[in-house]
Amino acid sequence: MKDILVINSGSSSIKFALYQHEPAGNERGFDGLCLRYQGHLSGIGSGRPPGLSLKDERGETIDAPRGLVSQKRLDHHGAIDGLIGWVERQGLANLSAVGHRIVHGGRSYHTPMVLDAEVIRDLEAFIPLAPLHQPYGLEPAKRLAELRPGLPQVACFDTAFHTTQPRVAREFALPRELTDKGLIRYGFHGLSYDYINRVLPDHLAGAPGERVIVAHLGNGASMCAIKDGRSITSTMGFTAVEGLTMGTRCGSLDPGLVLHLIDQEGMNTQQVSELLYKRSGLLGMSGISSDMRELLESPTPEARDAIALFVHRIVREIGSLAAAMGGLDQLVFTAGIGERAVAVRQAVGEQSRWLGIELDDQANACNATKVSSEASRVGVWVIPTDEERMIAWYTANHLQQSASA
Amino acid sequence: MKDILVINSGSSSIKFALYQHEPAGNERGFDGLCLRYQGHLSGIGSGRPPGLSLKDERGETIDAPRGLVSQKRLDHHGAIDGLIGWVERQGLANLSAVGHRIVHGGRSYHTPMVLDAEVIRDLEAFIPLAPLHQPYGLEPAKRLAELRPGLPQVACFDTAFHTTQPRVAREFALPRELTDKGLIRYGFHGLSYDYINRVLPDHLAGAPGERVIVAHLGNGASMCAIKDGRSITSTMGFTAVEGLTMGTRCGSLDPGLVLHLIDQEGMNTQQVSELLYKRSGLLGMSGISSDMRELLESPTPEARDAIALFVHRIVREIGSLAAAMGGLDQLVFTAGIGERAVAVRQAVGEQSRWLGIELDDQANACNATKVSSEASRVGVWVIPTDEERMIAWYTANHLQQSASA
Repeated sequence: MKDILVINSGSSSIKFALYQHEPAGNERGFDGLCLRYQGHLSGIGSGRPPGLSLKDERGETIDAPRGLVSQKRLDHHGAIDGLIGWVERQGLANLSAVGHRIVHGGRSYHTPMVLDAEVIRDLEAFIPLAPLHQPYGLEPAKRLAELRPGLPQVACFDTAFHTTQPRVAREFALPRELTDKGLIRYGFHGLSYDYINRVLPDHLAGAPGERVIVAHLGNGASMCAIKDGRSITSTMGFTAVEGLTMGTRCGSLDPGLVLHLIDQEGMNTQQVSELLYKRSGLLGMSGISSDMRELLESPTPEARDAIALFVHRIVREIGSLAAAMGGLDQLVFTAGIGERAVAVRQAVGEQSRWLGIELDDQANACNATKVSSEASRVGVWVIPTDEERMIAWYTANHLQQSASA
Repeated sequence: MKDILVINSGSSSIKFALYQHEPAGNERGFDGLCLRYQGHLSGIGSGRPPGLSLKDERGETIDAPRGLVSQKRLDHHGAIDGLIGWVERQGLANLSAVGHRIVHGGRSYHTPMVLDAEVIRDLEAFIPLAPLHQPYGLEPAKRLAELRPGLPQVACFDTAFHTTQPRVAREFALPRELTDKGLIRYGFHGLSYDYINRVLPDHLAGAPGERVIVAHLGNGASMCAIKDGRSITSTMGFTAVEGLTMGTRCGSLDPGLVLHLIDQEGMNTQQVSELLYKRSGLLGMSGISSDMRELLESPTPEARDAIALFVHRIVREIGSLAAAMGGLDQLVFTAGIGERAVAVRQAVGEQSRWLGIELDDQANACNATKVSSEASRVGVWVIPTDEERMIAWYTANHLQQSASA
């Protein structure tokens, strides 16, 4: 029995989880992985005291143990120092490996990789492709390599699941030299799609599952068309700003409008980036909040308009993704909004009746796993995603492969 | 019986047409409009001698009359001087009005307008929204106002047909102050859609026509969802670069990629604009040509890839536009590629079978008007567009209204 630490590190926060791995378990499923702790460190690099929420194996909040956050301010290095110290000091873990979520694996990384110095160098080359995400994913791995040089680390990529996509879905209509340079549609949220893709068959009970759309609707949001178990296209493109309307990101936008903001509105690229990534989406439209829960409770027309656009974009993309697969068998909602926003699912369902989608209102109202009616030609599901478990699974798998090699 | 001159002026060319208008004709249809001449002046402002092609009422090429292009070089003023002089000198026309295609009517112009000084000033304010098109559309009108101050001129807008769209289709997920400033999806090719929308019912013979997609596939390309006779969404957005892959334009592109080109590739906005408008699309992908005819004849994999992406984007948008209407009854192909590229229609048809589309291969091969099979759940049509006739119709209509007012 070994323990696996999962680190999902963003620009100002780190999600982490500790799993016990029992290799005797079903290796194709997630049964051998037993969650022990799950936590969220926020306010990293903010200059203010960090926040910590920690939950035990039953999902119940527990007090932050002394030592995990001992400093007034925390950067990524300090966070990792505290985390690894806590894991080891408490005698909690027989730590055998660490799995990391890495946003960008470029075109070459189709599967998880051991994070040695060479791979880290390679992945740093992708920083210009994801400057807001990639450095923060790599920082903890680099620190751990210094602190515990012998500890195996595995990188799991948000892009890897999408490397199966055909060219027509991957490429923009740009000159070939730019496409060859890597200016293509990578797609993200791949670990979430990978997880859903693996657990969905358990629910289908023989129902057709060849053509699946997964709607990952969190603060970041995207959708993926999965045909015969493989990603064939997704709504996110070269960066994490394209596609659906998100909490603070604009989603798809006329490229000519970006040029207009610079040439006619006198903005520089940093201001445009800040506008499109941080001040647009639900927040920008509503002027109230990036949080769907707040908007659903707000009586203002601005909140209503923001929700309407959010829903409209999902409905449009369901049509577009179905077109890429030649139809639709199953639709899965996941991530914060997908798992809990009853009204959003309801509106999407109503506007997608033309595809044979029909929700069971009662099932939908209580976030049941299956929310489509018996008569629905398309199965509609609410399945919580678990990117950390997916990373733990890949990391455990890697350990077993190296042990048997 | 009166004559109407139609001017469709772009940055380096002017299309024109001369119609005889017989007010006794059917005022709702196009019967009262009889085409006399149709011409195309190219190379305007190029510093080289301009080109002229001129056709008579039967569509047969005739020799360019002396006087119409007498100069070695031609700017827009010179072209208009030559054109009006030719029309009047030849005793051809009892010219009663001139109709203009104006690309941008902003949000306020829902219908054609008489081009007086105030309206011209208003329309000049939209130049920043369409710097590559708007000035050239207005130039001929301004010149004619100087030359023939009493001659009525009517502006017909490419954007007007789309002003019926609901907010969700019109707005980007940007902060409200930018939306209010006019950074919205205007849609273009409206005169083409308007024309198709008016002639399609003549073909339907009672078949359902509530939910129609028109694919305007020319060098510029877009698609429009028309529900109950009104535009409810289109693929082109704030500028004429969004949406489908075009001859030299990229179509939809991750807005983050535009920032990447500037920040990481060191391009300035003029270079990016030139890249996205002039060097992308079919030309950029194939490295061969922006002309679909050449690509269809080329045996290279690059040409094949470019065509495949062009088709894929159309197929995806058919799904997305159908989603906006809750289904699809009729699909119309129009403009150069839409009217003549048999293989493109065939590929789109095959990839859209899931929607109940089935082409009649023989009918499709000879560009018949109806190209769907008897079994097809969706009617598929090839209908030549005629933006000039649409402009002439509006201009004639305006004359009648002012006469009866």
